Amino acid sequence: MSGAAPSAAAPLFGKVALLGVGLIGSSLALACRRHGLVGELAGYARRPETRATIERLGLTDSVHDDPAEAVAGADLVVLCVPVGANAAVAEAMAPGLKAGAIVSDVGSVKQAVIRDVGPFLPDGVHFVPGHPIAGTEHSGPEAGFADLFEERYCVLTPPPGTDEAAVEKVAELWRRCGARVEAMEAAHHDKVLAMTSHLPHLISYTIVGTAFDLAESERGEVIKYAAGGFRDFTRIAGSDPVMWRDIFLNNREAVLEILQRFGEDLSRLQRAIRWGEGEALEDLFQRTREIRRGVIQLGQAGTFDAREQKKDGQGD
Amino acid sequence: MSGAAPSAAAPLFGKVALLGVGLIGSSLALACRRHGLVGELAGYARRPETRATIERLGLTDSVHDDPAEAVAGADLVVLCVPVGANAAVAEAMAPGLKAGAIVSDVGSVKQAVIRDVGPFLPDGVHFVPGHPIAGTEHSGPEAGFADLFEERYCVLTPPPGTDEAAVEKVAELWRRCGARVEAMEAAHHDKVLAMTSHLPHLISYTIVGTAFDLAESERGEVIKYAAGGFRDFTRIAGSDPVMWRDIFLNNREAVLEILQRFGEDLSRLQRAIRWGEGEALEDLFQRTREIRRGVIQLGQAGTFDAREQKKDGQGD
Repeated sequence: MSGAAPSAAAPLFGKVALLGVGLIGSSLALACRRHGLVGELAGYARRPETRATIERLGLTDSVHDDPAEAVAGADLVVLCVPVGANAAVAEAMAPGLKAGAIVSDVGSVKQAVIRDVGPFLPDGVHFVPGHPIAGTEHSGPEAGFADLFEERYCVLTPPPGTDEAAVEKVAELWRRCGARVEAMEAAHHDKVLAMTSHLPHLISYTIVGTAFDLAESERGEVIKYAAGGFRDFTRIAGSDPVMWRDIFLNNREAVLEILQRFGEDLSRLQRAIRWGEGEALEDLFQRTREIRRGVIQLGQAGTFDAREQKKDGQGD
Repeated sequence: MSGAAPSAAAPLFGKVALLGVGLIGSSLALACRRHGLVGELAGYARRPETRATIERLGLTDSVHDDPAEAVAGADLVVLCVPVGANAAVAEAMAPGLKAGAIVSDVGSVKQAVIRDVGPFLPDGVHFVPGHPIAGTEHSGPEAGFADLFEERYCVLTPPPGTDEAAVEKVAELWRRCGARVEAMEAAHHDKVLAMTSHLPHLISYTIVGTAFDLAESERGEVIKYAAGGFRDFTRIAGSDPVMWRDIFLNNREAVLEILQRFGEDLSRLQRAIRWGEGEALEDLFQRTREIRRGVIQLGQAGTFDAREQKKDGQGD
C-alpha cells in the first residue's frame, strides 16, 4: 500500500526505509510526504514505545522491529540511528537489502559510518553517506517537522568510485526537502564539523556541567540570571545525550585535535586576564568580530537574529 | 527646557544625566522618554562622532563633552561607560554634582565600580550601583531601543548604609522601564555573573578565535557550516571589544576562579573522549539537561526559543 501525498512530480523512490525514527528520521518522513518524494515509507525502531509513537503519528506506512524486514524491497535505506548503533543495524539489515538498493545515513560523523556500515553491504548496493546539518535540541519522533531541512546544508561524502547516479538520486532527495547539497571528503567533513559543531557542543556541555556543580544556592541564581549568555549554552547542552556521546567517541581524533588548540587559546586568555594584558584581550575580541561578519554575510546567521538583537539579553 | 514625553504619571526625576550613551545609555534614554520618567535628559560622550549621533537622534535634550557640565543640576546621574572608564569619568563629573544627587551605573561588574567611583563622590551624594542584565551584541547610540529592559532583571548592589529612599527611586526607574529589580551584594553579583555571563563570553571569544586561526580554506568552511552550533558563539563573540576587555580585567578574581573550574571539567571530558569512556560522557549530558529544564521553567529561555526549535540547525 502507498501513503504518499499527492504531488505533481513522480516520486523519486518507490520505497524508502528509515532505520531509526528520531528527530531527523521523522522530519525526513514528513518532508518526503509533503513533497511527494516516495511511494512508500517503512520505519524501523528498536524500542516498542518508539514504534507505538510512529504508528500513532502515522509517520511511516509500516513499522518494524527488524531492520531486515523494514528494508525488504526498499530502493533507498536511510540509517537515522545514533552513529554508535550503525554497525549493529547495518549487520541486521544486510540480509534484507534488495539488489541495486541505495543505502545512506544522516550521521554527524562520516569516517566512522563508512568504517562501520561499509563492510556489511553486499555487492551491487550503493552507499552514499550523508549529513543534513540541521536539528534542534529536541529528540524523538514527536520532535520532527517537515521543514527542518529548508535552506540547511546537507553534506554527502561518497567514497571514491561510488555510483554517480546513486549519489545524484540522494542529492535530489535532499534538494527537494529544501536543503543545499554539497559534496566533501569524509575526513574533511569530520574536521570541519569538529570545529563548527562538535567542539561547541562539548564546550556547552562542560560549562553547563560546571554550573551544575556550584553550591545549591549559586546554582539557582545561575539559572535565574541565565539571560547573560549562559542561556545559549544550556540550549545546546540540552541536546540528545546518546547521540552526542556517540559523536564524540566516533570523531575522537578530530575532536581531540581541535580541543587541544582551544585549550591552548584559552590558557593564553587566562594568562592575559591574570596579568591584566588588556591589549591582548581587545585584539582578540576585535578579530572575532570579523568571523561574525563573515557568518552574517553568508546568511547562516538565521532570520531570528533580528529578534535576538531586540529581545535577547546577553550583552552585559 | 524639557523634552519629556507626555505621561499620566509625574516624572520620577527632574533632570537625569547619562554619562556615556552607547547601547545601554541610549536604550535608557528612549525608555525614560517613552514612559515619561524624567523632566530633562543630559548626555555626555567623549567622542565628537558619538555626540553628533546623539544630537542627530535627539536622544538627550543636551549633549556635553564635559561630564561636570552634563551632571550640573541633575537629580540622577547614570554612568554608562565601559567599566574601565568609570574612575576617570567619576573624577571629572564630581565637581559638577549637586547636593543630594543620586549616582548610579549600569556596569557588568559591581565591586570594581564601587572601588573606582565611590572615592570621588562628595558627602550627601547617594551611590546606588546597578546592572541591567540586558543587551545585544551591538553597540553604540544607534543600537538602543526603548524595550531593551522589558522583563529583564536589573540587579542593584547598594553598599550597606546607602540611603533607602535613593535605592527605591533607582529601583522604581528600572521597574517603570519594564525590568524586574533585585538587590544583591556586589561580591555575590560578580560571582554569579562570572558564571552566567563572563565565562560564556570568554569561551565564545576563545572558540571563535580558535576557528579564526585555522588555515584559510578551513576557516571559510567553518563560516559556511556555522549552523552546527558555532553560530551561537559567533554572535556572543561579536560583542563590544572594549566593554568586554574591561569586564574581564575588572572581575579578574571571579572570572579566573570559574575559569579554573571550567578547565578542570573540560580536561575530564577530554580524557573521557580519549579513553572512550562513553558512560562518563552520557552521565554529564543527562545532567546538563536538568539545568536546561530549570532555565526553561524559569522563563529565561525567551520567547524566541520556539522559533529556534523550528529553524535553528544546531542539532547535529
